[in-house]
Amino acid sequence: MALVVQKYGGSSVGSAERIKRVAERIVATKKAGNDVVVVVSAMGDTTDELLDLARQVSPVPPARELDMLLTSGERISMSLLAMAINSLGAEARSYTGSQAGVITTSAHGKARIIDVTPSRIQDAMSEGAIVIVAGFQGVSQDSKEITTLGRGGSDTTAVALAAATKADVCEIYTDVDGVYTADPRIVPNAKKLDTITYEEMLEMAACGAKVLMLRCVEYARRYNVPVHVRSSFSNKTGTIVSGSVEDLPVEQAMITGVAHDRSEAKITVTAVPDHPGIAAKIFRVVAQSELDIDMVVQNVSQAASGRTDITFTLAKVDGPRAVAALEKSRGEIGFDQVLYDEHVGKVSLIGAGMRSHPGVTATFCEALATAGVNIDIISTSEIRISVICRDTQLDDAVRALHDAFDLGTDEEAVVYAGTGR
Amino acid sequence: MALVVQKYGGSSVGSAERIKRVAERIVATKKAGNDVVVVVSAMGDTTDELLDLARQVSPVPPARELDMLLTSGERISMSLLAMAINSLGAEARSYTGSQAGVITTSAHGKARIIDVTPSRIQDAMSEGAIVIVAGFQGVSQDSKEITTLGRGGSDTTAVALAAATKADVCEIYTDVDGVYTADPRIVPNAKKLDTITYEEMLEMAACGAKVLMLRCVEYARRYNVPVHVRSSFSNKTGTIVSGSVEDLPVEQAMITGVAHDRSEAKITVTAVPDHPGIAAKIFRVVAQSELDIDMVVQNVSQAASGRTDITFTLAKVDGPRAVAALEKSRGEIGFDQVLYDEHVGKVSLIGAGMRSHPGVTATFCEALATAGVNIDIISTSEIRISVICRDTQLDDAVRALHDAFDLGTDEEAVVYAGTGR
Repeated sequence: MALVVQKYGGSSVGSAERIKRVAERIVATKKAGNDVVVVVSAMGDTTDELLDLARQVSPVPPARELDMLLTSGERISMSLLAMAINSLGAEARSYTGSQAGVITTSAHGKARIIDVTPSRIQDAMSEGAIVIVAGFQGVSQDSKEITTLGRGGSDTTAVALAAATKADVCEIYTDVDGVYTADPRIVPNAKKLDTITYEEMLEMAACGAKVLMLRCVEYARRYNVPVHVRSSFSNKTGTIVSGSVEDLPVEQAMITGVAHDRSEAKITVTAVPDHPGIAAKIFRVVAQSELDIDMVVQNVSQAASGRTDITFTLAKVDGPRAVAALEKSRGEIGFDQVLYDEHVGKVSLIGAGMRSHPGVTATFCEALATAGVNIDIISTSEIRISVICRDTQLDDAVRALHDAFDLGTDEEAVVYAGTGR
Repeated sequence: MALVVQKYGGSSVGSAERIKRVAERIVATKKAGNDVVVVVSAMGDTTDELLDLARQVSPVPPARELDMLLTSGERISMSLLAMAINSLGAEARSYTGSQAGVITTSAHGKARIIDVTPSRIQDAMSEGAIVIVAGFQGVSQDSKEITTLGRGGSDTTAVALAAATKADVCEIYTDVDGVYTADPRIVPNAKKLDTITYEEMLEMAACGAKVLMLRCVEYARRYNVPVHVRSSFSNKTGTIVSGSVEDLPVEQAMITGVAHDRSEAKITVTAVPDHPGIAAKIFRVVAQSELDIDMVVQNVSQAASGRTDITFTLAKVDGPRAVAALEKSRGEIGFDQVLYDEHVGKVSLIGAGMRSHPGVTATFCEALATAGVNIDIISTSEIRISVICRDTQLDDAVRALHDAFDLGTDEEAVVYAGTGR
């Protein structure tokens, strides 16, 4: 008998009809002889509706109360799902994150899972019940306050529960059939991957592939939980995320896919004095505003002036705060200007094989040049090449790279509407 | 510094606008130097909407999951209220029934409060915060499951928290100005009472006055919590429920008010063998179906047959089950027929003074006779007379009694739409 953890996003449980369809799938998994733990997001638009109510009563709602409010969304979907399963003749019990033992930090709205103490849900399973757990939420270790996990929190909940209960697999049901070599909405002949290693999936997620969130993949890798990404609207096998690039045979297809990201902005600090410690000062200023930066480039100093430019990218939503923080420290650091550019896109090529194939970078740059895409910044890791270009050229760049590395297929991808949280 | 517990029903927090208005009242109470605990119901139609969703996924939702679902209603209203208060510059924190220490029996959907362990909300108050607590819900003592309290549960939560925190007063905000001598929709010149004793309020509630539920008044009486029933739409003083009829001066106005009830049905079991233990058998049959009965009348036996009729009333919703249970036991008990009548109404006169005024019953019957109301059953307590009549004559009966005992005023009552749970 296997233990299966399944996670259903908001669009999979977006209506009473869809909840009943999901219930059938869950009961079938149980009847096939498995123990089943289900993690569920809030129904379709519930979160947006609750946020709208919050805005009506308060311009800046306290984070603690916002978490209390938003967690009612999963409470609704999980109890309805348990009812639907019960009406099919199987027993199901729903548990909040707190009841399921999801222990988090106390950072409301962006808490991290510290520990999972699943005794209560294990007891329920040993009594034959299907367990339904609210995704996206937990209880803080110190203050016993209700917390939410932030973006991708439900996926992370599922992987964390799978790790804590030693599940055989964590199935993430979503609105696509699996992980693709590129976004099928941009590249119509993108190919679904049957398998992908944790490291490659991490790079894909970090570079903008939305099918799984970074934290969820990090968690799965740390606890070695196989993750099966698949569609809740079909019965097809999806993509299995497992294993390490270190264990791949060298002959394995060398390039995994192309990811893209429109959510970043570029900041350039010009004419910075080129002596040790100045770059550190700049990034300390940004870090003190609790903002994460992504790519960093420092050009060679112009000998005459003894000054250089430092460029970095970060999430667009954080851009204005970063600019303001830097402007405040202009006197202390002594630079000329802060330039802010929101009209950029990032395209990345990911593949375990590129470690041992030095020609990849050349092919990469040639493909973009042929497509007329101008490269603004380049950054690489052992299994990834990323460049920043104009956002208007991003789709062309994705298609050019996908073609150049021959990642396509003849089958057409299936794309559904909507997305979970 | 006083400690005030306030309870707001669903119509008082039915929209973002109303929540903000309630927030202002709460902040004013706090600024006047009081510690404040607020108990809140779900917003307006939330409960009905959730029940509708439940029906869409399951014909008979399990009670445990229904409680999980419905408790999200108060979670939404309480967090929104806390946000609204915070945006006015005061600190507020919301707590679920479970977090606030409301310990109940495990009867889902109709749990009873066993104990309140308010340490967490007392800590919050000692830190200067206004405490918002979800009404209508708690956590079961044995199994730590989320429970709901059933009808009037939020009022009971408020009184229980007031008792546990030794509050100076429990204010129940509702859609009427207080407790009236009769329903102002039937008797336009009904008078608002300034005070009423626990016993009289118990009788009023038991006889159909909807302003406070029976369980809430029982709880207040047991723990001697003064309850102030008032409107959330005005600043007028309402009705104070406190004290015992035993402590009333004999000269005090002898009649309190007229209550009526359309929710009962009448069952008559005919030609029952008139020997000891038969009535007990009949009521045991009803009790085994977990149905509560209200009034009971047994006519004098007809000497010739040695048989008698037994009549009782109970809630209309329980009628069909009671009839079915009795029909099943016909052979064992040996009666002739079970007659079922839904078209009855109950009118009751309540007043501490009637203990020492023997003429009340005569005046009561004369008033009904003059109004042409035929009395079907009479039942009395020390401070109450109730009769069952035709439901079509109920309003006339209420008005006749209200006039006969001169309970009216010249001021017109204010009646608002909507009601909480």
